[in-house]
Amino acid sequence: MRAFASDNYSGVHPDIMDAIVEANKDHMISYGEDPVSDEAEKLFQNHFGEDAKIFFMTTGTATNTLILKHLTRSWNSVICTECAHITVDECGSSEAIAGVKLIHAQTVNGKLNVESLKPLLSGRLDVHQSQPAVVSITQSTELGTLYTLAEIKDICDYAHSKGLYVHMDGARITNAATALGVSFKEMTVDCGVDVLSFGGTKIGCMGAEAAVFINSELGKGFGFVRKQGMQLTSKMRFIGAQFKALLSNELWKKNAEWSNSLAAKLAAKAAEINGVEITRPVEANGVFAIIPKDIVATMQEKFPFYIWDEATGEVRWMTSWSTTEEDIDNFCAALKDALD
Amino acid sequence: MRAFASDNYSGVHPDIMDAIVEANKDHMISYGEDPVSDEAEKLFQNHFGEDAKIFFMTTGTATNTLILKHLTRSWNSVICTECAHITVDECGSSEAIAGVKLIHAQTVNGKLNVESLKPLLSGRLDVHQSQPAVVSITQSTELGTLYTLAEIKDICDYAHSKGLYVHMDGARITNAATALGVSFKEMTVDCGVDVLSFGGTKIGCMGAEAAVFINSELGKGFGFVRKQGMQLTSKMRFIGAQFKALLSNELWKKNAEWSNSLAAKLAAKAAEINGVEITRPVEANGVFAIIPKDIVATMQEKFPFYIWDEATGEVRWMTSWSTTEEDIDNFCAALKDALD
Amino acid sequence: MRAFASDNYSGVHPDIMDAIVEANKDHMISYGEDPVSDEAEKLFQNHFGEDAKIFFMTTGTATNTLILKHLTRSWNSVICTECAHITVDECGSSEAIAGVKLIHAQTVNGKLNVESLKPLLSGRLDVHQSQPAVVSITQSTELGTLYTLAEIKDICDYAHSKGLYVHMDGARITNAATALGVSFKEMTVDCGVDVLSFGGTKIGCMGAEAAVFINSELGKGFGFVRKQGMQLTSKMRFIGAQFKALLSNELWKKNAEWSNSLAAKLAAKAAEINGVEITRPVEANGVFAIIPKDIVATMQEKFPFYIWDEATGEVRWMTSWSTTEEDIDNFCAALKDALD
Amino acid sequence: MRAFASDNYSGVHPDIMDAIVEANKDHMISYGEDPVSDEAEKLFQNHFGEDAKIFFMTTGTATNTLILKHLTRSWNSVICTECAHITVDECGSSEAIAGVKLIHAQTVNGKLNVESLKPLLSGRLDVHQSQPAVVSITQSTELGTLYTLAEIKDICDYAHSKGLYVHMDGARITNAATALGVSFKEMTVDCGVDVLSFGGTKIGCMGAEAAVFINSELGKGFGFVRKQGMQLTSKMRFIGAQFKALLSNELWKKNAEWSNSLAAKLAAKAAEINGVEITRPVEANGVFAIIPKDIVATMQEKFPFYIWDEATGEVRWMTSWSTTEEDIDNFCAALKDALD
Repeated sequence: MRAFASDNYSGVHPDIMDAIVEANKDHMISYGEDPVSDEAEKLFQNHFGEDAKIFFMTTGTATNTLILKHLTRSWNSVICTECAHITVDECGSSEAIAGVKLIHAQTVNGKLNVESLKPLLSGRLDVHQSQPAVVSITQSTELGTLYTLAEIKDICDYAHSKGLYVHMDGARITNAATALGVSFKEMTVDCGVDVLSFGGTKIGCMGAEAAVFINSELGKGFGFVRKQGMQLTSKMRFIGAQFKALLSNELWKKNAEWSNSLAAKLAAKAAEINGVEITRPVEANGVFAIIPKDIVATMQEKFPFYIWDEATGEVRWMTSWSTTEEDIDNFCAALKDALD
Repeated sequence: MRAFASDNYSGVHPDIMDAIVEANKDHMISYGEDPVSDEAEKLFQNHFGEDAKIFFMTTGTATNTLILKHLTRSWNSVICTECAHITVDECGSSEAIAGVKLIHAQTVNGKLNVESLKPLLSGRLDVHQSQPAVVSITQSTELGTLYTLAEIKDICDYAHSKGLYVHMDGARITNAATALGVSFKEMTVDCGVDVLSFGGTKIGCMGAEAAVFINSELGKGFGFVRKQGMQLTSKMRFIGAQFKALLSNELWKKNAEWSNSLAAKLAAKAAEINGVEITRPVEANGVFAIIPKDIVATMQEKFPFYIWDEATGEVRWMTSWSTTEEDIDNFCAALKDALD
Repeated sequence: MRAFASDNYSGVHPDIMDAIVEANKDHMISYGEDPVSDEAEKLFQNHFGEDAKIFFMTTGTATNTLILKHLTRSWNSVICTECAHITVDECGSSEAIAGVKLIHAQTVNGKLNVESLKPLLSGRLDVHQSQPAVVSITQSTELGTLYTLAEIKDICDYAHSKGLYVHMDGARITNAATALGVSFKEMTVDCGVDVLSFGGTKIGCMGAEAAVFINSELGKGFGFVRKQGMQLTSKMRFIGAQFKALLSNELWKKNAEWSNSLAAKLAAKAAEINGVEITRPVEANGVFAIIPKDIVATMQEKFPFYIWDEATGEVRWMTSWSTTEEDIDNFCAALKDALD
Repeated sequence: MRAFASDNYSGVHPDIMDAIVEANKDHMISYGEDPVSDEAEKLFQNHFGEDAKIFFMTTGTATNTLILKHLTRSWNSVICTECAHITVDECGSSEAIAGVKLIHAQTVNGKLNVESLKPLLSGRLDVHQSQPAVVSITQSTELGTLYTLAEIKDICDYAHSKGLYVHMDGARITNAATALGVSFKEMTVDCGVDVLSFGGTKIGCMGAEAAVFINSELGKGFGFVRKQGMQLTSKMRFIGAQFKALLSNELWKKNAEWSNSLAAKLAAKAAEINGVEITRPVEANGVFAIIPKDIVATMQEKFPFYIWDEATGEVRWMTSWSTTEEDIDNFCAALKDALD
């Protein structure tokens, strides 16, 4: 099967699989105190600073939810976009597990901004209302777009001026940093991001996510939240090994560059086909398009992908580290065929 | 103080206070098994049917929240309006205590409808998404408007056809029934409403709300939810007494008629004043208006009321069973003075 | 009906009812900003210090649960006795609403002590274990016994030395202070208690409880917890009025002295009856006894009371401010009759 | 490092690692709809019946917690032993995430029985009390002991007669089935167990657990619980692959037999050493012993293991599929040395 449904339809990058196999020797302390996890943590600290506190996790939903749980008291709310993964794709985990209320800020192409935050932070702040405590942004966004460094910094500055934390859902942070041509640090620490969900799975890991607290003080107690949140894996070394490989030899950058470039190629090629309309700026590894509704099912059978919006008929095509140029060619050829 | 801030600025209607005093004799079984509560429950059943199951509560927030908790599993969501009390004025209780995700349907004058429900119920219903289980409507609405019987029935029919329950937040149900000139039964049972938050406090009680399960089967287990939800009062007879008085001699109707009529009078009188714009249909006991921002503070000092929308400057004036015609005259006179 | 089932079978003390009626005039700000509530709060501060922060509530379960919720993060546990109201009689509210794990310390006559706390605080304190954050004691206890001032102080000192808070469930705090002949302050503030559930309902109120944070800093944010916890009553003045009466003219003390003295009388008189064994020290207003199982049902029909322990047949008789000497005489006469 | 701390200090069995590598080709549907997971599910159904519904998970804590969440409403409690993993080692996840109250039944060597359940199910079942809904037993137990088939059946029969479900925490179910010489089916389905936490991690997987609902009807909706519970891994095929290998060629049995036999050998050998007292029946792959406190630290440095009970000095030694006979010899030699 070759698919554009999600970057998580891909398997594990060979270098990462090798690292997993490599870590499989001898007995090691469980629950993250092992030397492999230690090494991976240090690689993270190279990017995010020595004071960063890293917690390995198994899913992106867990990383987002437990970070939000940790940053809030029960009477707090979290501001996000109406298309944020936390509000659309986590089955109410933020509400039921983290116990927070999600409030949607107005957006353009999946991005909120200071102007859309203002009306949410200027109301009557009395005991009858849930109190916003966190702004959560996704980089790259669920619509394949990017916040610029300046935009991130503005959001952080405004949020901090109002006493809110900023969380970045970085399920595709590697695609974002690569596309912007900046380091993780420039895109997070330097802009003022407080906590980050760092995604490894979509960029070639088997199942490796990390909660990154830029300031270790803010991460205090999160070890309990993770264990109680059912995310403390016993043989943690195998998550450590994945990150060790991903963060070595700039593997993350190679994978991200590749998938970004193929998305650009796919968008360019598809845009030339009559009947295909690219609907969003293609800035990372996602392409959004409107194609005639009557060809969707046939195309999906050949190359699985998601319908993003039932109403408009907008569809989403994701590329990954494992997408090939041949995949793009075959897909566009089939698209052309279907539209003739 | 004379105020238009909320109907809950009023005290207790004398007949209700008499009933409270009357109930204060001898020992009685606690937690609701007493004869006074029994009588009150029967009066409710006269309105809602013999199969109705009634649970007395102390606050409207508790009644709403615990009903929603009872009707849902953790992965369910509840559809409401963006101005619903449950999403705006309950400090995240639905999310943190009931554990549900609230989803906002589009509205006109505080009312959702079948068309606004449709897009929320036709999406991909997979495990990634919280599953809608309840539609919650407020009657009369937070904007002082009313659903017609036909509108309620349509919502119920559509919700039921999709497997959802309908909850009615009836914090001001007496005002609504009176304004529509219908019985409680016609407005709820006959339309298909499944569960009701029946509000007594705003219409002259001291603190008396009720969760009314039209179908007793649906109420099974709610006794545990109420106790765990910290709402099982020991000397329940004093809540029973309040409802006994409210539902006797049509006291509820007299109080509601009075407050509704004074809202109409206030709206009519205020509308004639230059600089006052009535912004919503005045259908129950709430009047919404835009007045010049520079007179708001002065007016509030004399007659407390709420600013509803900081952005537009819309304000809210509520009348109650205890509002007098003199209050209306004085208020409008002051308004006129301020605007000269 | 005359009953010994619970002190909450009693009605409202006439002075308190008068205060309620008295508060019923004019419009007043809702949600606790009214002058009556203000006065009541000041009376509390006379007892607990000017820095105390008081929150009025409607039920004891709500007061206990929301205090525990406020003092803990999700990974914390609370240490209590195996007969504590919070673990036995609140339908899992501590677990489901406050989200805490309850851990039972060993007891003698319903009282825990420093020795019973030690093994619970010396274990491996790693992320796999819920971390104790609060010790909760009940005064007077669920078994009608009393902690001495020295015992309370020892518990507080030890708890504080381990970084834990001390919560006192004072559902019957008036009975306790009166029995010990001390002030509230001596029994709480001076011993080191951090937060108190102050019970008014059982000693003559209609429904009036209070969360008392000795140190206002610790109470910060509790306003949100109360609102979200569905306990912010709109017409708060009527709870304020109850406390105003209870804390004026030492009404609380008169009521407590009376009920304590009748419990002592009941115990003394019953102990003389063949076949009755008093099982616990009678130190406040509860009497525990074992009587032949075959007379329990008949006695309960005449004077309702609870079976405390199905296994041993132990029963509980509570006296209240409304119990009369005649009640005691009649009850003991019936007991004697039944045992002849 | 060679350790007896936990069976999860071991790595991944080579056959399982091979299966993981093998599954790493091509694109596959994510979230469990892939062919590898399908095959694994069928292997489970070979053991537990065609009607069994299987959900793959990443941690044992998640499996236990989410099953309990699924089987209960908020007012329910779960009966377990005082040494159960769910109450001791999951950081309050049952309470905070599943929202259940845990109630401890009396035990002998880590096992509860019908007699210890009785007093917990005969009390007053009113709204003031959390209602037991599930009995949770661990097989093999946290103390390395085993329930016989007859004991499991008795517990299930009694629980079912009272309307409760039975959950089995099978973190070490392979060790148990092998030790008893029975099939999984005989030990669960045939005895009446309703839901099972099936542990793969400790017996040679990388991170593979499964919630097994014997009756698929009971598992309805659990897909939402798992997703919301943050346990729906995207590249599920790699969990499927682990189970495929474990359940093929009786690998699970070989691994379990090996670790059980080495535990027996360790116990036998250690028991002969002066100063070592084996404290529990050695029935699976855990050995509990009391050794002089002054040698514990030295021994732990050489071969990490846990102190089980600070008070008594009891320690725990676990064997795994990867323990060697040489490990046992070396450990016992060191023990002997230390005690000379």
